[in-house]
Amino acid sequence: MDPTMAHETMAHATGALTQAPGRAPLRVALLGCGVVGSAVATRLVEHAYDLAARVGAPLELVGIAVRRPQRPRPDVPVDPALFTADAEELVTRADIVIEVIGGIDPARGLILRAMEHGASVVSANKALLAEDGPTLYAAADAADVDLYYEAAVAGAIPILRPIRESLAGDDVRKVLGIVNGTTNFVLDKMDTSGAGFAETVEQAQALGYAEADPTADVEGFDAAAKAAILASLAFHTRVSSADVHREGITEVTAGDIQAAKEMDCVVKLLAICERVTSADGSDAVSVRVHPAMIPRSHPLASVRDAFNAVFVEATAAGPLMFYGRGAGGDPTASAVLGDVVAVARHKVAGGRGPGESAYADLPAVDMGQALTRYHISLDVADRPGVLAQVATAFAEQGVSIETVRQQVAPGAGERAKLIVVTHRASDAALSATVDALAGLDSVDDVASVMRVEGD
Amino acid sequence: MDPTMAHETMAHATGALTQAPGRAPLRVALLGCGVVGSAVATRLVEHAYDLAARVGAPLELVGIAVRRPQRPRPDVPVDPALFTADAEELVTRADIVIEVIGGIDPARGLILRAMEHGASVVSANKALLAEDGPTLYAAADAADVDLYYEAAVAGAIPILRPIRESLAGDDVRKVLGIVNGTTNFVLDKMDTSGAGFAETVEQAQALGYAEADPTADVEGFDAAAKAAILASLAFHTRVSSADVHREGITEVTAGDIQAAKEMDCVVKLLAICERVTSADGSDAVSVRVHPAMIPRSHPLASVRDAFNAVFVEATAAGPLMFYGRGAGGDPTASAVLGDVVAVARHKVAGGRGPGESAYADLPAVDMGQALTRYHISLDVADRPGVLAQVATAFAEQGVSIETVRQQVAPGAGERAKLIVVTHRASDAALSATVDALAGLDSVDDVASVMRVEGD
Ligand SMILES: NC(=O)c1ccc[n+]([C@@H]2O[C@H](COP(=O)([O-])OP(=O)(O)OC[C@H]3O[C@@H](n4cnc5c(N)ncnc54)[C@H](OP(=O)(O)O)[C@@H]3O)[C@@H](O)[C@H]2O)c1
Ligand SMILES: NC(=O)c1ccc[n+]([C@@H]2O[C@H](COP(=O)([O-])OP(=O)(O)OC[C@H]3O[C@@H](n4cnc5c(N)ncnc54)[C@H](OP(=O)(O)O)[C@@H]3O)[C@@H](O)[C@H]2O)c1
Repeated sequence: MDPTMAHETMAHATGALTQAPGRAPLRVALLGCGVVGSAVATRLVEHAYDLAARVGAPLELVGIAVRRPQRPRPDVPVDPALFTADAEELVTRADIVIEVIGGIDPARGLILRAMEHGASVVSANKALLAEDGPTLYAAADAADVDLYYEAAVAGAIPILRPIRESLAGDDVRKVLGIVNGTTNFVLDKMDTSGAGFAETVEQAQALGYAEADPTADVEGFDAAAKAAILASLAFHTRVSSADVHREGITEVTAGDIQAAKEMDCVVKLLAICERVTSADGSDAVSVRVHPAMIPRSHPLASVRDAFNAVFVEATAAGPLMFYGRGAGGDPTASAVLGDVVAVARHKVAGGRGPGESAYADLPAVDMGQALTRYHISLDVADRPGVLAQVATAFAEQGVSIETVRQQVAPGAGERAKLIVVTHRASDAALSATVDALAGLDSVDDVASVMRVEGD
Repeated sequence: MDPTMAHETMAHATGALTQAPGRAPLRVALLGCGVVGSAVATRLVEHAYDLAARVGAPLELVGIAVRRPQRPRPDVPVDPALFTADAEELVTRADIVIEVIGGIDPARGLILRAMEHGASVVSANKALLAEDGPTLYAAADAADVDLYYEAAVAGAIPILRPIRESLAGDDVRKVLGIVNGTTNFVLDKMDTSGAGFAETVEQAQALGYAEADPTADVEGFDAAAKAAILASLAFHTRVSSADVHREGITEVTAGDIQAAKEMDCVVKLLAICERVTSADGSDAVSVRVHPAMIPRSHPLASVRDAFNAVFVEATAAGPLMFYGRGAGGDPTASAVLGDVVAVARHKVAGGRGPGESAYADLPAVDMGQALTRYHISLDVADRPGVLAQVATAFAEQGVSIETVRQQVAPGAGERAKLIVVTHRASDAALSATVDALAGLDSVDDVASVMRVEGD
């Protein structure tokens, strides 16, 4: 017998909602019934018994706002009369509002209106949280309601609650996240197949791992929004998408992937949130999204396909990693419903959960000030003095070299390859070094430049 | 500049405790100042500014109970007058009591007394929680205080809060945990060195990874306590150490490790909590600790040294993994202080966090009823009919074979090796099969028997 079936049968047998604790039901309004919303609605109905037992009161779905309320939705096991196009009205008659429409407007207005009317809000909307979180946090404070958004980062993976609560007695130093499944799928396939970027994106689209317009994913916008949310919580500081330096994976070549392989590394698109010391010696944060080489021995290196993972380094805890599915209806619904249970418990017991905290108020340094390491692969002339010339270009920018390796391909004539890995230096100095190298007459081509993370 | 230094300097510069939010301090009593307690005391003092900002009130350390209060403790940066041998008195004058003494008594009595006097309690005591959790949960309910114990399972890894809160809207199907660092260290070293158990334990003792008396670790008692705690939270059911089937790693041989290698597997001591269907078709749980082979491609397989990791399979979320340090003063203090901040926030804001929940009240099946898979390696006579005889022994117990592989070592004469991996069957049927195999005249030796998990 399928154990899920056994479970649902039990819920039925014991009477679901009606058998739940005697308290009056909490009214739940769902905004959006697409990939995530339909999974949320289904679980709300089919697992009503367990949800009620865990909350201490039944959850009653009072309405679902969609664009097209007349559209048949046979997969969503609810009374069709629950669908409405009038989201503005729906949010005024709920104790808990779940926002899974996405985008900035009308989601923002609906959330604000819901809170004004006393509802706690659960949202999966990373774009909105990263663009205008503070407006929403302030509104939640003013209305004395909860605003939870675990599903906004890394889908099913519990990561915001652990950072906000479990690590509240520790100091997060660094967060390295694989938080976009599409780009991880593409980079992983490039690694295993040796194929180029464009070809691999087409394959990902055919398999449903990339959208028809993959811009938000491959240009790093999605990861940047998540980086802003992670950094805000990790560093008790307000960080918005605009503070995040962003580079996507469109420029990553099969040659870069090959260069990483030769270093026993893989290329990943990372959301990086780091506590740093700024030029004047004060504390600051660096938040950025870019492709980087990480050693194959790093826990993040084995994150395959469209999986997500977040690596956290904290002073006392040391290294931690959280791994799981970053997207999809059911995984995202798991995170949404965890938040729904939490805010519902607060509605039952009184009180609110820990909200946003921005007391540390650290400035964000720009990318030039971030300390990074570069892997640079150069095609050079194979003659005496070239290495000295190259080394001088590094030295002039104050960049120190960790390793340099020279490769002479058989039959390459007078050409050779120089592979340089630097120590940590300011990104500005490193990028100035790359410019200087490109201008050297002994350098034919700067074949690959990539940052190195994870050691 | 070391960023930790910058941070501590900042705390000092801004006046630490005195600059914190204007609310009256919360009084914190620490019971125990050993490996964990000294790290907790140090962070409470050195990170007072951040803790106060995150809680919304300063935390004031009002006393530390130890066995030997006169003992100099130069590493603990507190007023020596704070040390006392009178824990009974100390717990009556605190808002929050941190219990890091360990063991059943006097820890239990002190926690009960603390709660009676209105204190919320944070404990790292897996032995006590697993033996007598319900008494403590009931006392916390009666006193309307919090009882948190994240540090009791897997040290620094946030795992109890994610299961209790983040997955509260989902259904956990299975938990597979590497929750004992000592045994993971030993098994990992046996895997890389090929050495035997006794020799590797000595090495672990020399390196400080195993205690002089390693019984609690290598016999699986420690992991069994953690399994009970994990299962209770995952399945909303009371599970105590006594419900956990327990096998340690003392019988694991170099031959078993080698057999696993040949299957492209590793051997791990796993805490396994599984939702199952019992013989009468109703829902139940199986909770057990035993060594098992897992495929090298499984996320748990790459957990090296003394690291811990917990793999969770939930219906909606799918697979999740949580990874980090499972022990040590600082990592454990991270978990303790996360709980301290949480219970302190509740003291400030009113209300309590979600407590224990046992509404599902599922029965535990015994080991014989658990469905497992076996890997069995047999030394047999190399003559016609042997395979048929062996296959019959499986069939007679209703156990179906997934793969069977025959190895004839060069120069082995008339001897061969049969390696059988079964499908899932009841553990009772599997162990009866092993007994039957041992009695066959064509079988010289049952060389290795190990359960297989993780697919
Ligand atoms: N998909 C994932 O795997 C995933 C993972 C994590 C987070 N998220 C986040 O979850 C949110 C929802 O994503 P999704 O993939 O479920 O989106 P989706 O499939 O496009 O669904 C959007 C839903 O919102 C409804 N809608 C759109 N505009 C509306 C309006 N003005 N008023 C009322 N309803 C409106 C749509 O109605 P119709 O059905 O009538 O078109 C649809 O039901 C987004 O914030 C996304 O970033 C998604
Ligand atoms: N160590 C870890 O890595 C770790 C990880 C997770 C959880 N834990 C749990 O944390 C707890 C503490 O472990 P630990 O390693 O810190 O233990 P420990 O180093 O042995 O320290 C025990 C402390 O308790 C004090 N103590 C003992 N009996 C006492 C009594 N009757 N009254 C008052 N104080 C008493 C001792 O005082 P003296 O200093 O005077 O001897 C000592 O300070 C245990 O429950 C353990 O399972 C430990």
